[in-house]
Amino acid sequence: MSWLKILGAVIVGALLLTVGILLGHFAIPKGGNGRGAPSWVQTVGRDLNESLLQSFMDQVDSGKIRENLKALASQPHMATTKGDEELVKLLLSRWQDPQIGLDSASEDVYGVFLSFPDPQRPNSVAVGVCGSQIFSTRRSEKNVTADQAHADVVQPYAAYAPPGNPRGRLVYANQGKRSDYLELVNMGINLNGTVAITRYGGAGRANKAVNGAEFGVAGVVVYTDPADINDGRAFEEETYPNSWYLPPSGVERGSYSVYFGDLLTPYYPAKGNMPGQGRALIHDGIPPIPTQPIGFEDAQTLICDVQVNVHNQRVIKNSSNVMGFIRGSEEPDRYVLYGNHRDSWVHGAIDPSSGTAVMLEITRVLGKMLKEGMRVWGVHRGATIPSEFYSKLRERSVAYINVDISVFANATLRAQGTPPAQSVIFAAAKQVPGSSMSVYDNWRNHFSRISPSYGVIPNLGSLGAGSDYASFIHYLGITSMDIAYTYDRNKTSARIYPAYHTAFDTFDYADRFIDPGFTSHQAVARTVGNVLLRLADSLILPLNVSDYGEKLDELYSAATQGDFLANLNANNLSLGPLKAAIGQFKSVAADFNQRIMKLKEEESPSPLQIRMVNDQIMLLERAFLNPQAFPNQYYYSHVIWASKSSDQATFPGLADAYTSALETGDWDQVRKHLTIVVQAVESAASTLEAMA
Amino acid sequence: MSWLKILGAVIVGALLLTVGILLGHFAIPKGGNGRGAPSWVQTVGRDLNESLLQSFMDQVDSGKIRENLKALASQPHMATTKGDEELVKLLLSRWQDPQIGLDSASEDVYGVFLSFPDPQRPNSVAVGVCGSQIFSTRRSEKNVTADQAHADVVQPYAAYAPPGNPRGRLVYANQGKRSDYLELVNMGINLNGTVAITRYGGAGRANKAVNGAEFGVAGVVVYTDPADINDGRAFEEETYPNSWYLPPSGVERGSYSVYFGDLLTPYYPAKGNMPGQGRALIHDGIPPIPTQPIGFEDAQTLICDVQVNVHNQRVIKNSSNVMGFIRGSEEPDRYVLYGNHRDSWVHGAIDPSSGTAVMLEITRVLGKMLKEGMRVWGVHRGATIPSEFYSKLRERSVAYINVDISVFANATLRAQGTPPAQSVIFAAAKQVPGSSMSVYDNWRNHFSRISPSYGVIPNLGSLGAGSDYASFIHYLGITSMDIAYTYDRNKTSARIYPAYHTAFDTFDYADRFIDPGFTSHQAVARTVGNVLLRLADSLILPLNVSDYGEKLDELYSAATQGDFLANLNANNLSLGPLKAAIGQFKSVAADFNQRIMKLKEEESPSPLQIRMVNDQIMLLERAFLNPQAFPNQYYYSHVIWASKSSDQATFPGLADAYTSALETGDWDQVRKHLTIVVQAVESAASTLEAMA
Repeated sequence: MSWLKILGAVIVGALLLTVGILLGHFAIPKGGNGRGAPSWVQTVGRDLNESLLQSFMDQVDSGKIRENLKALASQPHMATTKGDEELVKLLLSRWQDPQIGLDSASEDVYGVFLSFPDPQRPNSVAVGVCGSQIFSTRRSEKNVTADQAHADVVQPYAAYAPPGNPRGRLVYANQGKRSDYLELVNMGINLNGTVAITRYGGAGRANKAVNGAEFGVAGVVVYTDPADINDGRAFEEETYPNSWYLPPSGVERGSYSVYFGDLLTPYYPAKGNMPGQGRALIHDGIPPIPTQPIGFEDAQTLICDVQVNVHNQRVIKNSSNVMGFIRGSEEPDRYVLYGNHRDSWVHGAIDPSSGTAVMLEITRVLGKMLKEGMRVWGVHRGATIPSEFYSKLRERSVAYINVDISVFANATLRAQGTPPAQSVIFAAAKQVPGSSMSVYDNWRNHFSRISPSYGVIPNLGSLGAGSDYASFIHYLGITSMDIAYTYDRNKTSARIYPAYHTAFDTFDYADRFIDPGFTSHQAVARTVGNVLLRLADSLILPLNVSDYGEKLDELYSAATQGDFLANLNANNLSLGPLKAAIGQFKSVAADFNQRIMKLKEEESPSPLQIRMVNDQIMLLERAFLNPQAFPNQYYYSHVIWASKSSDQATFPGLADAYTSALETGDWDQVRKHLTIVVQAVESAASTLEAMA
Repeated sequence: MSWLKILGAVIVGALLLTVGILLGHFAIPKGGNGRGAPSWVQTVGRDLNESLLQSFMDQVDSGKIRENLKALASQPHMATTKGDEELVKLLLSRWQDPQIGLDSASEDVYGVFLSFPDPQRPNSVAVGVCGSQIFSTRRSEKNVTADQAHADVVQPYAAYAPPGNPRGRLVYANQGKRSDYLELVNMGINLNGTVAITRYGGAGRANKAVNGAEFGVAGVVVYTDPADINDGRAFEEETYPNSWYLPPSGVERGSYSVYFGDLLTPYYPAKGNMPGQGRALIHDGIPPIPTQPIGFEDAQTLICDVQVNVHNQRVIKNSSNVMGFIRGSEEPDRYVLYGNHRDSWVHGAIDPSSGTAVMLEITRVLGKMLKEGMRVWGVHRGATIPSEFYSKLRERSVAYINVDISVFANATLRAQGTPPAQSVIFAAAKQVPGSSMSVYDNWRNHFSRISPSYGVIPNLGSLGAGSDYASFIHYLGITSMDIAYTYDRNKTSARIYPAYHTAFDTFDYADRFIDPGFTSHQAVARTVGNVLLRLADSLILPLNVSDYGEKLDELYSAATQGDFLANLNANNLSLGPLKAAIGQFKSVAADFNQRIMKLKEEESPSPLQIRMVNDQIMLLERAFLNPQAFPNQYYYSHVIWASKSSDQATFPGLADAYTSALETGDWDQVRKHLTIVVQAVESAASTLEAMA
C-alpha cells in the first residue's frame, strides 16, 4: 500500500513440485524399483508432505515477528534514504545467514524516478490578509511518542505533485471526484483559479488534482476527515497515544500517481544500462497542479483565500530490489513468488513492515528447515531474476503471494485474489488454529458469501491495483493473492487504519493497538507459509480453475441487470456469444477437474502428463490477458480485472465502453469490448481443453 | 503469397518428442528394466529415429505431387468460391481417408471481410475524347490455353480498393513510393486530381494509392512492367505458352492491404459468434482512392486523360480453415505447425497449389506410416485448435513451417526463417539428394554467406510479412520458416515468377515451365518433411538458439555504420548498453549449448530436465515480443523482425525512429526504441540462463 511498487523484497522461490524442501527421510529407498530405473523415477512423483506443513506452522513464532517489526520500524525508512538502505543490509544478512539463510539472496539496483519535498523550503498551505500571512499549516506531526521527532521524518507532501505557489479562493470539493467538481459548477460556482480542498477517499489521490485542473482549479489541498478515518473522533485525548485513532496533526502522505510502476520507464526496468524514454514521454496520471496534504487540525482553520506552497523536486535515485531464492529440486523452472515492498513513508510499522516482519519469520523457518537436512539439488546462484523480469516471470510463475500490510487490525483474516487462489487459501486457513476456532471459520464469520457451488464460504475479495501485486496480475497475468488480518467492521468504519502513512505508524502503535501479542501476525505467517508450501510442494497445483466460473457468471449477470441489456439490444448487441462462452468455460473446467481426479488415482502417472496439467493451470490466468484491450491504461492487460471508472459491475472494458456510449453514442466500442471479453473467455476455456 | 492469410490449410500436429509416429519396433522391450518401473520410463527418453526419416523421404513421390497439383489447380479457386469450397472437401477427404488419413481432421468456418469486383459492371481504365470513349482496358486475360476462358476466372481488380470513377490527367509515378510522388511535385507537377500510373514493385500494393492520395492523386493504375517480370520480353511470341514469361494481356491481381489479417476483426477470430468491431473501426492501410491493375499491353496504350472505373464491393463471406492433426504420444501439449493458404486468385497452380500439393504428399506418407503400425496413443479429436488460436498457439508451439509457393523455379532451395531454424533446415537439406549433389550443397552454390561461426554456408533469408507465416512470427513470436525452390538469379531477374496472380498460373504452366518432372517439388517435400519429423521427434529440439547471436551482431553492426553512431552520440545516446546486452546473449547461449551437450551425454536424463531445456528453446522467440513496441503497426510485436520503412539496416524500431528523428528531432523516440531493443535482447538472454 505504499508508493514504490516496483521495489521491495521479493522472495523468488523456484519451488514448484517437490521443491528443495524435502526432508531427509524422503531419500530414495534402496532397491524396490529394480536395477536400471533412473533415480528420478522416484522423485518426480512425490506429492505434498503434510507433516512438513505442520512442522512449518509449529515453528512460526509470534515473538520473533514482534522482534522483526521492532527492528524494521525502528527508524523512518522512506525509499532511498539511509533507513531504507539499512533494511537492504538486514534482509540480505538474514537470507544469507549460515543457520537460517535461504539457498541464495541478492540485491539488484534500479534508478527510480522519485519526488521529494525540499528540506530547505517546506511545503505549506497559508492564509494571508492584505499581504501578510496570518496562518500556515504545520510542517510535521506533533511529537507525542518521540518517534515523531526523529530527524528523518519526512514533511507531509504529495509525491509527484509539481512545485508552485497558487493562491486563490478556497472551495470545498468533497472527495475531488469529477462528479464533485461538476456539482459545484452546476451550482454556478466558478472554479477558475480556486484552491480546492478535498478529503481523502472516493477518488484516487492524483485524480483529485487531475479532475480539478480540468475545471480550472489552480491548487488542491487534501485533508484526512475524522469521519472517514477516526469513527468521528477528533479530539486529541481520544487519539493516539490513547487509542489507535489519528491525532489531529496527523497527515497522510502518499504517491500521487494514477498508475503503478516507474513513471520514466513504463514497461522497462529502471536500470542504469537502459537508455529509458526521456522525461518528455512521461505518461499522464500525476497531478498537473500543486497539491498538498494536511491534517484535520489544520483543515479546520483554513478560511477564504489560501496559498498552496509546494516545493517538491523530482529526482532519479538508486534503490535496491532484494531477492532470496530457494531452488526447486525437480522443476527449478517454475516459480512460486512471494513479495512485499520494503520502503515506508515514515517509520512504516504497519505499512509495510508488518508484512516484512512476517516474511522474515517465514523465511527464518524455511531457511532453518533447509539447513536441517532438506534436499537441495543443484547449484545456488545469485541474481537469477535480473532486471528483465517480465518474460521469465510470465513464462514460469505459478502464483504470486503478496503480504504488504499483514495486519490492519486483529479481528479476522482478509484475503483477495483471483478465483483459482480460493482453493489453496481455504485449505491453508482451515489448518491454522485461532483462539477459539480455525482462521477459516473465523473468517467466514466475518466476511461470507453464498456460493452456488459451495454454499456459505468466506468471501475472497478482488484485487485492485493498490499494492505490490499490481504488475503481477494486471500486466503479467499471474494468479495472485493478497493476505492480511483486518477489522471487525461492526466496530469501526475507518477507511484504513488511522495512522496510515503518517508519523504515528510506529512500532509502539502496532504493539499497543494493532496486534498486541502479535497473534494475528502469527496467523498470517502460518496461513501464508502454508499456501506457499502447498503451491511449491503439491504434485498437482492446488489451484481450482473451475472457481473462475462463478466470477464470470457474476460479471455476466451484472450486464443483464437494469437498463444494461435493453440498451445493448437497442443497439443490435447481444450477450448471447458471451453467455455461450462462459457456459463453454464452465463445462471445459469441470471436465478438466475430472481428468485431474483420474490422474490422481493413477499409481504412477507420467511426469510429462503431470507437467502438462500443471501448465494448463498455470497458464489459465495468462489466457485472460490482452495487451490490445486497454491501449490507454498502461500496464493493464487482464480483461477480467483491469481498473474501470464506470460503476457498472460487469467486465471492466465493457462497463467503461457502455457508460461512455450512453454519452457519446459510440456503440462500436461496446461491440469491440464484448468481442474482447468473448475471446478472453474462449481462450481461457481453450487452455483447459483436453489435448487432441 | 496470396491475400487470405488467415485461412488456409494448417496441419496442426501435436507432434513434439517421440510423437505418434514411432514404428512398431519401438515397442517397450519386455523385461530389462526391472519390475515396478512405470512404462513411461521407457518412452519419455526416446530420441529421433533416423531410419524413420529415411523411410519418409524414400516414399515421397514426385508423380503423386504432380497429380495433386493437377487436381488442385483444375479450376479457379478464389476464396469463398465454389472451386475453393471443393478444395475444402478434397483436403478433408484425404486427411480422413482410412488408408492414408491423419489422426483427425476438421474444418472451422470464419466470416471474413472480403472485396470482389462486380460481375455486372466490370472495372476498367478508359480513354475518352470529347465525351466518347476511344479505348478501354480488357476485361480479362487473352485466352491462350483454354484455362483463361474458364467461367470462374475473376476479372482483374485491386481487392479492397474503393469503388469510384475518377478521371484525370495521366501521370507516370514510377513505383508509387512516397519518394516517387515527391520527385514529381519537386519537378513542379501538380498531382491534384491526376490519375497516377505506377508499376508493380518497390512499394507495397496498397501503398501506391495511400502515398498518391497524400499528394491529391484521384486514382491509381498499376501495371506489370516487362522489365520487372519478363526479363524485358514483351512480344506475344516470346511469352506463355511459348515460355514461362507473362503474355501482354496478363494482369496481376492482389490484395491491396498493408497489414495482414482480417480487416474487420484485427486480433480476434472472424467467427460468427464474435460481435466484432463495426466497420467504422477498420484500420487504415487500404487504398483511399480507386485503384486498378492492368497488363502491359494496355499500359502502352494509355495516353493523356484517363478514367479509372472501379466497382469493387466489400462483403463478409464464410470461408473454412481446414486442419489435420497427428497427436503426439508423449507431449500432446507441444505443437509443430505446418501450413499454407488454400485460396488462389485464379487457378493458382503455383500460388498456392504448389505448396498444397507438397503438403498433401507429406501427409499422405505420414498418414500411411501411421496406419502401418506407428504408435498412436490416446484419443483422436476433432477441432482442438478452435477459433481462439492465439493463447494456445503462443503457449505451446515449437515452430511453424510454411510452404506457400513451393516451387518458384527449379534451380535451388531457398529458405527463410528466424535464426534457430537454420540448424534444422541445414540438417534436413544435407540429407536430401539432388541430381548431382545434396540439396544443401546446391543451395550453398546459389546463395551463400560467410558466417563468423561456420564459414561459407547457405544464406537463410529473413521472413517478411508476405506469406502465411506473418501472424505466427510477428504476433505470436513462434520460430518460423518458409521453404521453397527458386530461381537461378544468373538466368532471370524476374521480380517473381511471371504468371503470378494472373490467369496464366495454371497446371500446364507449372508442368511445362516451372518444374517439369516435379523433382523440385519432391525435393521441397523431402526437406520439409525431414524438418517436420526432426522437430517432432527429437528428444531435444533441434533449433540452435545460439545462431541468434550472428543476427544480433549484424543488426548492431549496421547501427555503427555511416553517420548513425555519430548522430546518436551527438544526441547523448550510446550503443553501449545494446552491445553489452548482445554480448551477454551470446555468452549465455553458448553456456546453454554446453549444458545441452552434457545433458545429451547423460544415460537417462530426467524427462523434466529435458522439458525444461526444450521450453527454454521454444520460448526464446517469445522473449523478443513486445506488444507495446509498435503501437501503430498492428499485429507487429517482434522487436527483431517487425516491418520498417527506413532503409537503415538495423533493428526495425530503432531504424524508423532514427530516420524520423533526423527530420523531426524527436530523439526521445530513438531512446525509447534503444531501450526496447536492449530489453528484448536481455529478455532473450535471460530465457536461456541456467536455473538458479
